[in-house]
Amino acid sequence: MIECSVCHSKLVSPTTKSISRAYDRHKTRVSSKQRVLNVFLVVGDCMLVGLQPILVYMSKVDGRFKFSPISVNFLTEMTKVLFAIVMLFFQARHQKVGEKPLLSISTFIQAARNNVLLAVPAFLYAINNYLKFIMQLHRLAFELADKLYFNPATVKMLSNLKVLVIAVLLKIIMRRRFSIIQWEALALLLIGISVNQLRSLPEGSTAMGLPVAMGAYIYTLIFITVPSMASVFNEYALKSQYDTSIYLQNLFLYGYGAIFNFLGILVTAIFKGPDNLDILQGHSKATMLLIFNNAAQGILSCFFLKYADAILKKYSSTVATIFTGIASAVLFGHTLTMNFLLGISIVFISMHQFFSSLSKAKDEQQNGMHELRDGQENHRLLTA
Amino acid sequence: MIECSVCHSKLVSPTTKSISRAYDRHKTRVSSKQRVLNVFLVVGDCMLVGLQPILVYMSKVDGRFKFSPISVNFLTEMTKVLFAIVMLFFQARHQKVGEKPLLSISTFIQAARNNVLLAVPAFLYAINNYLKFIMQLHRLAFELADKLYFNPATVKMLSNLKVLVIAVLLKIIMRRRFSIIQWEALALLLIGISVNQLRSLPEGSTAMGLPVAMGAYIYTLIFITVPSMASVFNEYALKSQYDTSIYLQNLFLYGYGAIFNFLGILVTAIFKGPDNLDILQGHSKATMLLIFNNAAQGILSCFFLKYADAILKKYSSTVATIFTGIASAVLFGHTLTMNFLLGISIVFISMHQFFSSLSKAKDEQQNGMHELRDGQENHRLLTA
Repeated sequence: MIECSVCHSKLVSPTTKSISRAYDRHKTRVSSKQRVLNVFLVVGDCMLVGLQPILVYMSKVDGRFKFSPISVNFLTEMTKVLFAIVMLFFQARHQKVGEKPLLSISTFIQAARNNVLLAVPAFLYAINNYLKFIMQLHRLAFELADKLYFNPATVKMLSNLKVLVIAVLLKIIMRRRFSIIQWEALALLLIGISVNQLRSLPEGSTAMGLPVAMGAYIYTLIFITVPSMASVFNEYALKSQYDTSIYLQNLFLYGYGAIFNFLGILVTAIFKGPDNLDILQGHSKATMLLIFNNAAQGILSCFFLKYADAILKKYSSTVATIFTGIASAVLFGHTLTMNFLLGISIVFISMHQFFSSLSKAKDEQQNGMHELRDGQENHRLLTA
Repeated sequence: MIECSVCHSKLVSPTTKSISRAYDRHKTRVSSKQRVLNVFLVVGDCMLVGLQPILVYMSKVDGRFKFSPISVNFLTEMTKVLFAIVMLFFQARHQKVGEKPLLSISTFIQAARNNVLLAVPAFLYAINNYLKFIMQLHRLAFELADKLYFNPATVKMLSNLKVLVIAVLLKIIMRRRFSIIQWEALALLLIGISVNQLRSLPEGSTAMGLPVAMGAYIYTLIFITVPSMASVFNEYALKSQYDTSIYLQNLFLYGYGAIFNFLGILVTAIFKGPDNLDILQGHSKATMLLIFNNAAQGILSCFFLKYADAILKKYSSTVATIFTGIASAVLFGHTLTMNFLLGISIVFISMHQFFSSLSKAKDEQQNGMHELRDGQENHRLLTA
């Protein structure tokens, strides 16, 4: 941030802005292909998310997991690294004459230097996974804490705030602009998900109880902000080096991820004994499928973040949840609850409002105005 | 409707359109005053609706009403007629020199002839009131029917569809245009109200049960369409004779209303004995206040319909319900449920989207385009 010497208004330095310019230029060029890609991303995401509960069910032995969740994280990262390497070789073989060779050491070192920022989201993802692991480990303690200090409804509802946190981070970090209708659409998305969740809450917990313990606030804050920040930083890092091959970016991201997860395993081994070093313990064919599914979801996320954005990803997982709900109702003969019907109506209206040309036309208009204002401010700064 | 002789497309005859033109001209002239008036209307409505439950509570003797509900309707109509007459004399005394005298017989007869259409909403309102009365009379029978054929959730949710029915009728009868965002806003209003109602439903009734009896469908259809049609026809009748004094229009509307309600009392007396003719039976000071409140709400409705519209009225009563909910939570120490908070968030977003300049600018643009298309179509019709 630069401060104007005359009026003391804060101005964003031009360098921050130019970082994602390569992506912006690209975006206008391929907006027709973009739609097709978006459809593929969403359909793929829906299928993978839909498979998840089936694989989780299959991975359980006697109703519980025999493997350490942290080993799943590490194996998932390794699978993704392997996938990135295979795809890199594949891409290198199909390179045209005159293109910069993908597999040369100089390309690799230059790309590694340019994409060092990917360590940030990799670190945040690892922390998030580790937190989830700790939560599972201390599940009983947390359940007790929930009962004492925290209304389960409040936790569930508050974690839906992730959508809005992501949008705010996109605005700050990626300098994305949203129209009022789009902000309202995001609020509706979070309300729609919450309405759908209301039905699964135990009796008497629908009253809005405020958490009494400070710890509960901090826990929720971390639970919301860490994955949101990971997602937006990842989007920023991937898009700011738009010209680097996505498989090379994958390689770095998951390489960092594997390192951080391995450090996690080491720390666990130090505190809980060397048994935890045996990362293949308790795994079966079903858990391997689960790991493949996790890896595929992770890779798809990267495509979402580089070629679309974190918000389309969020809408995509919500639509996946809806389809899973409808499919399970059709397959197992559940009745659809009123909450579900009201919730999905809100989500679909939100989706239409967020992506419709109505809000976008407004958005671009606002962008134009903002651009103009930026120009004037820069002019003021220069003439001052 | 006229059919084009070449392309067979349906065209609306120009006369239907010119009816509300007087109002449209007026509307653009006073749009600045309109906002102030709208605020007064909504605040007044909120106060009257808020008083209602207190007066109903006060009117009960030993937990039930001692008077016939149909007598309340008749007395309310009479109160409104009285109010209209008083206001007419008041308005006549403050007339400027050169204005057409309000109280001359020729003015009255001409206005009566022009406003004969008001008999339609008066008749529909009377039917609606009579249906409500019958429902209260046969409450037990209906409760049984509800249990047998109809999920209470379904009835409640379906009756929220009134908002959309009113909008469709406004589009057909008043030729109002709504933008896509406004249609979505209306859907959100109905969803918001439904989410708020979910909490008050008995356990196990949130599953979407489909009514099995044909009677249940017909009952719901009447329950939804009669008051919606009354409201929109009233708006049409009031606005199409925009130059007639609203008090004169009130006089006709409530005059017709009193006649229809009196006929209802006569019919009741024929079938259930002459005791029902004693319309003052069982009334107290509290019931008189209730009748005054009802009358004031009815008169305010007319102001809403003539100077604003049926949709602002609907939003107004929803806001009144919300404020009543918040007030009762503050006064009696209830906790606000999650449903209530999610519901009112949806309602407020819906309200902003419906009335914001975003959707209106779009709306006027569409109007312009439609006007153009109409013109072209008329041209095609004439040249064909």
